[in-house]
Amino acid sequence: MQKLYLVGTGPGDRELITPKALSAIKNATDLVAYGFYLDLLGELGRGKTHHDLPLGEEIQRARLALELAASGKTTALLSSGDIGIYAMASVVFELLDRQLQGQENAAQWLEIDIEVVPGISAMQAAASKVGAMLGHDFCTISLSDLLTPWESIEKRLHSAGAGDFVVSFYNPRSKKRDWQINTARDILLEYRPAETPVVLGRQLSRADESITVTTLAELNANEVDMFTLVSVGNSETRKIVNGDKQWVYTPRGYKKKLV
Amino acid sequence: MQKLYLVGTGPGDRELITPKALSAIKNATDLVAYGFYLDLLGELGRGKTHHDLPLGEEIQRARLALELAASGKTTALLSSGDIGIYAMASVVFELLDRQLQGQENAAQWLEIDIEVVPGISAMQAAASKVGAMLGHDFCTISLSDLLTPWESIEKRLHSAGAGDFVVSFYNPRSKKRDWQINTARDILLEYRPAETPVVLGRQLSRADESITVTTLAELNANEVDMFTLVSVGNSETRKIVNGDKQWVYTPRGYKKKLV
Repeated sequence: MQKLYLVGTGPGDRELITPKALSAIKNATDLVAYGFYLDLLGELGRGKTHHDLPLGEEIQRARLALELAASGKTTALLSSGDIGIYAMASVVFELLDRQLQGQENAAQWLEIDIEVVPGISAMQAAASKVGAMLGHDFCTISLSDLLTPWESIEKRLHSAGAGDFVVSFYNPRSKKRDWQINTARDILLEYRPAETPVVLGRQLSRADESITVTTLAELNANEVDMFTLVSVGNSETRKIVNGDKQWVYTPRGYKKKLV
Repeated sequence: MQKLYLVGTGPGDRELITPKALSAIKNATDLVAYGFYLDLLGELGRGKTHHDLPLGEEIQRARLALELAASGKTTALLSSGDIGIYAMASVVFELLDRQLQGQENAAQWLEIDIEVVPGISAMQAAASKVGAMLGHDFCTISLSDLLTPWESIEKRLHSAGAGDFVVSFYNPRSKKRDWQINTARDILLEYRPAETPVVLGRQLSRADESITVTTLAELNANEVDMFTLVSVGNSETRKIVNGDKQWVYTPRGYKKKLV
C-alpha cells in the first residue's frame, strides 16, 4: 500500500519529537523537507533518500511527496512544529481536494494511505519556557499576506483584541514584510494595556535559543525576524519575577476567586 | 536542588508522549495527577509515590506539588494534553505569584526549580486524525463559566465568529453545564455557514477513540460530553471524501491562488 506520513518534528529539540514521529521517519524510505530540517535529523535520516526543495516552494514539495508515495515509496513529508498548524499538511489536502474535483491529473494520489502525526508547535515551546502563557483562551494569527489579504488579517487582529485572546503571531516578519508586526502591535494596543507581557522566542529549544520578555508597547519589528515566535498576553496575563527568573502566565479565568 | 516538573502527557497515546516528558517522569520520585492519568502511565509509574486528588481540586493539587517539591522530593505534576493549555501549569504560577505578593506563607516555594514540558493538545490530536483543520488562524475557547463569567465567554464567541477563526472548544460540557455548546453553536451560526465542518473527538488516541465529522448546524450538546474536543471550521474549511475516508482541512489562505 502506498503510504505518506505528514510529520511534525516539533520546535527543534530532539527530546520534543514524539515516538510516533520517529517511527514514521524510520518507516520511510524517502524524506521530503527543507535541507535545514533534514540536517537536524542527523542519524535518523541516514540511509534514506532526501528530497530537498527551497523554502517557499510549498506546493512543489507537497506534490513531490504525493508523487513519491504514489510511486510506491514510503514517504515522510516533514515540517518543524506541528505539520497541521500553518504548515504542509493543509497543502497536501488542498492538492488531494483538487484531484477529487478533477483539477489535477493524478488519480494514483487517491490510493495513498495518509497519516498525519502532530508535533509541538512554536507557541507551546515558547509558553513552556516562560511559564504558562497559554493558560486561558488564545488564538494564532499568521501575519503573512502572501495568501491572505491584509484587510482580512487586520480584521482578525481587531477580533483578537476585542475578544481579549492571548495572541501568537506566526510568520511575523520576512525580508519583504517588515511593517506588519508593528501594525499588529498598534491594533492590539487599542484593546489592552501598554505593559501587557510579550514573549519573543527565537530558535526555540535549539542550541542558539533566545527568549525575551518585553511589553506590548515595546514590541518592535527590529527585534523580530522570520524565526521568531511572538506571543502577546491578554489583559490578565502577568509577568512575575522570582530572583533572577522571570515567568509569564495567564490565569485560568476572569473571576477574582479566592485561591 | 528542589525540582518540580510540570508535564503534559499528550492526548493519551503513549506514542505521543515526548521523550522529554518521559525523562521528567523517570526523574521524579513523586507523581501528582488524577488517578486516571496515573493508570495510563503503566510501567513508567512503578516505584514512585502517587498522589491522587479528585477532579476539580486543581488548587489543592498544585499546592501539593509545590509542597512536595519544596520538601526535597523531585516531583512531576501531570496533566493530559499540554499542561500549559487550560491545565495545571497556570495554577502553579498563580500560587507562586501569590507567594511573591505575600499572600501565601510558603517561602520555600521560591527555591524550587520549575521546568515546564509541553505536550500535544487535544485539538492537535483531533486535527491530525481528520487532516489539517488547524491549517490557518484558529482560536481556543473554554466553555466553562466556573472561573470566567458567561458574558466574557459570549463576547469571545462573537469575536471568534467575526474574525472567522477556526474554533476549538475545551470543556464544552459537564454534568452541570449542558447548554453552553448549543449557545456557542448559535452564535457562530450568525457568522458562518450552516454546513461548516465540525469535528468531535472523544478519547482521542486512546483505545476507545471516536471521531465524528458533522456540520455546525447539526452540532448538538447531546453528542458532546466532558471528554469531547469540538473543533469548528472557519468559512473556508472543507470536508473532502475519498472512498471511505473523509478529511477536513482549512486552506492556508483566502486568496484563490492557482495551486
